Amino acid sequence: MTTSAGSSRPPYPEHTGPGRTDDRTANRSGKDADAVRALEVADAVEVLGLVASVEHQAFARLAEDSRQAPGLEQSLALSRLAACCTERRDRVLARIEELGGDPATALARFDGLLTEFDVRTPSSTWAERLLKAYVGYGVADDFCRLVARGLDEESARLVADVLDDASRTELAVGELDRACAGDDVLSSRLALWGRRLVGEALGVVQRVAQRPEVARVLARAGASDSTDGEASHVAARESVAQAPATVFNELTAEHTRRMSRLHLTA
Amino acid sequence: MTTSAGSSRPPYPEHTGPGRTDDRTANRSGKDADAVRALEVADAVEVLGLVASVEHQAFARLAEDSRQAPGLEQSLALSRLAACCTERRDRVLARIEELGGDPATALARFDGLLTEFDVRTPSSTWAERLLKAYVGYGVADDFCRLVARGLDEESARLVADVLDDASRTELAVGELDRACAGDDVLSSRLALWGRRLVGEALGVVQRVAQRPEVARVLARAGASDSTDGEASHVAARESVAQAPATVFNELTAEHTRRMSRLHLTA
Repeated sequence: MTTSAGSSRPPYPEHTGPGRTDDRTANRSGKDADAVRALEVADAVEVLGLVASVEHQAFARLAEDSRQAPGLEQSLALSRLAACCTERRDRVLARIEELGGDPATALARFDGLLTEFDVRTPSSTWAERLLKAYVGYGVADDFCRLVARGLDEESARLVADVLDDASRTELAVGELDRACAGDDVLSSRLALWGRRLVGEALGVVQRVAQRPEVARVLARAGASDSTDGEASHVAARESVAQAPATVFNELTAEHTRRMSRLHLTA
Repeated sequence: MTTSAGSSRPPYPEHTGPGRTDDRTANRSGKDADAVRALEVADAVEVLGLVASVEHQAFARLAEDSRQAPGLEQSLALSRLAACCTERRDRVLARIEELGGDPATALARFDGLLTEFDVRTPSSTWAERLLKAYVGYGVADDFCRLVARGLDEESARLVADVLDDASRTELAVGELDRACAGDDVLSSRLALWGRRLVGEALGVVQRVAQRPEVARVLARAGASDSTDGEASHVAARESVAQAPATVFNELTAEHTRRMSRLHLTA
């Protein structure tokens, strides 16, 4: 990993000759650029760790969904979705390694991310379980997509590519839509359940968005649409404060759109 | 699927003309051959269903192992093994479809195959859990390999290929070997656990081997080494009775070899 260790470098003889001041100035701005790059890489590793962790946890959940599925066809489909998660996660972990980060450490930073969410939203039926996954992954994927826009080009493209897979929502949409058709009681119960789920999911997002690394990338994401280069860092710092509000608006809009695919009120 | 429905074909005019007797004889031996082929295909679908079911159940177990793993590296490795199972299972299911069988029906015939095995062998530590998977999958894979020798060439090759993957034993061997090194108490406790596991696993094999479809393929497997063509069916029918003993000898020998890799007494 590129680090800013150079800033503690002792003054070697070659830095004490003529032109010392110029060298020092050049050196300082070089060091500043190094420090900015090092920070960006560390932030990217953190965000990629988040994406990989979401996929790793999705694997375990989908595998359990597969085991609990009421039918064999669903069980097969869910196991395939779970298998896809491991592949997606591993692609993200490979990128972390490319950036000089440690995949296991990056993943471990988000260990138990969804434990509280799970404790607070125990699903009691198969439909509730499906909707929980649909809403939960929906919000998680949307958030990861949003943050990823603030990453370096290659990482951003990778995350967008990894998350561009509708297959895991298709299954839930198909089944829930069928289950709700003509069953107003189930529909309104699930609509209520969806509101509770999105509230809890946004609570998780709020905690994650407050991590300094994530907050910085999120700010860069907001800034990257209008500015670039050095200027974006200034813009980024300025937009840290207002980023969360925009993020929540976008996540809520996406959630509403997602619920309407099920013909449920968000 | 090729069926023997032809045997109930009504006597059409063309079968009542001159040369009728010859036609009928030709027809009967053609029908016999059709019936033999239909039976072989049905047997193959049953055996492939067994292999696919073992992989599908292995997926769920490995996914749960991944969730319970004491370390992140193990959790990652186990999730990758689980993902492989879905791919292997799907390749076998595709072959069932090629043969004209219904994948879901074939799988469903082995639903809950390992439920009793699980109830009778609850593991209480991570080492016990690893050994259970190592011994259990070991016996299951060996049995599937043995039976598959009696399938048509393409199915036999597929099963051999699908099961030719040492990766899921490597993890258990590495960890258990490390855990047992210098710990005689754990070693002897696990050796005892291994004996209990193999006993229960062979009990499952015994029940599966008694299914008529499996027994026939097993008999063909025993016969296929020495004979071929029509003669093999006669040999197969004759060796149905002695097949189980040979199978159990082979499975026990493989189990002993497997335990010795862990430096444990079988």
